[in-house]
Amino acid sequence: MRTIRLTVAYDGTGFVGWQRQETGDSIQGLIEDALAKIEGNVVTLHGAGRTDAGVHALAQVASARIAAPLDDGTLRRALNANLPPTIRINRVDTVPDDFHARFSALGKTYEYRIWNGPAMPPFTRLYAWHVPQPLELSAMDEASRSIVGEHDFAAFQGTGSKTHSTIRRVTAAEWRQDGAAVTFVVTGEGFLRHMVRSLAGTLVEVGHGRRPVADLARLIAAPDRARAGRTAPPHGLFLVSVLYN
Amino acid sequence: MRTIRLTVAYDGTGFVGWQRQETGDSIQGLIEDALAKIEGNVVTLHGAGRTDAGVHALAQVASARIAAPLDDGTLRRALNANLPPTIRINRVDTVPDDFHARFSALGKTYEYRIWNGPAMPPFTRLYAWHVPQPLELSAMDEASRSIVGEHDFAAFQGTGSKTHSTIRRVTAAEWRQDGAAVTFVVTGEGFLRHMVRSLAGTLVEVGHGRRPVADLARLIAAPDRARAGRTAPPHGLFLVSVLYN
Repeated sequence: MRTIRLTVAYDGTGFVGWQRQETGDSIQGLIEDALAKIEGNVVTLHGAGRTDAGVHALAQVASARIAAPLDDGTLRRALNANLPPTIRINRVDTVPDDFHARFSALGKTYEYRIWNGPAMPPFTRLYAWHVPQPLELSAMDEASRSIVGEHDFAAFQGTGSKTHSTIRRVTAAEWRQDGAAVTFVVTGEGFLRHMVRSLAGTLVEVGHGRRPVADLARLIAAPDRARAGRTAPPHGLFLVSVLYN
Repeated sequence: MRTIRLTVAYDGTGFVGWQRQETGDSIQGLIEDALAKIEGNVVTLHGAGRTDAGVHALAQVASARIAAPLDDGTLRRALNANLPPTIRINRVDTVPDDFHARFSALGKTYEYRIWNGPAMPPFTRLYAWHVPQPLELSAMDEASRSIVGEHDFAAFQGTGSKTHSTIRRVTAAEWRQDGAAVTFVVTGEGFLRHMVRSLAGTLVEVGHGRRPVADLARLIAAPDRARAGRTAPPHGLFLVSVLYN
């Protein structure tokens, strides 16, 4: 047996999310099925983090233990041959046995992508949130600075989530603009469920002048889910990378 | 009545092509239907050129005559509200009555996009041809130079096409590379049916060393469809722009 690390890109459109579920196709489920076919046995895959239905990944990381004597490159090709084109294994690496995609992860970077123009380009429609009204990027960027650091992000957690703690450390957060393409790039040691989408939705309200820049700092100092903004839709969210030692 | 010029982007996936047909959704047909709904009358739309099933456009141009008293911006929004998200009207302009999208066009630019890497990214799968084997770009670029000018492109015409002449003037042709994204950019006064895809398919054979660089010049000097390369698949082709005075 050896431990493998998979680096995976997927178009989340039409999937029930990363995690295997009773009904509907999940990314985890399809990769586990492809691995089981090669391994001739059930294989359990651990992802660095779950992504919700409709969320995309440029480089999700997952780990598993397998016995199949294929080299890493052959295994990568065999997996891709058994997966739909919406899921691609970009790397297979044999790693030390103590590697675990979730427990070994030191941090993650997400992008939330917005199209801030009157008409959504057909090629971007599944990969960005269409916000037609002009956004004040400088205000959004200023508000983003107050989320950097270790804070209580309870106001930005999906309703019904259960976690030991709602304290998380965000190490970087900024907005980037390239014409109508506007992107929130955020890196942290961990994220609550819906946290990035909820931050993005709230920051868009700042960008529309419907909420003061100081609101982000206020929501962190005195968490209140009801006072945060809307949760931005899943199809603008990308898991960009996972950081390991 | 006034003459309008529409600038249109579309994701050609799933359409039967630009031209209205008996069966299946066409871009022309859907825009004509949206115009007819606004106009309360049948409207005929003239495209700068037909694109085949699966071919995309960043800025196709079309013209029509309408009586509806909507200003250009309102008409653009009304059209988009009546079209699927895979077709977007990016501009509506009222133009002189002698403007005709096809007859007034002086030239067109197409891009043929290739992904030249081992695994096709999920987000590019519908918008580029996957060519996994490494390509020799300098050879392809050199071969492309011989197509610039006024030549007989009969070897690169779709079988069964009927045209008065197979002579066309190409004003620019080059290959661009950005990592695994490899793009053939070609501008000309006119193109035969399948000409760009047939040139792209033939040039890829040059890039794989299966055909000498001089073959392009030979196929132009002595046209022979049977000696040209395969026609590259439609989903890599983009109509990028149409040139007018």
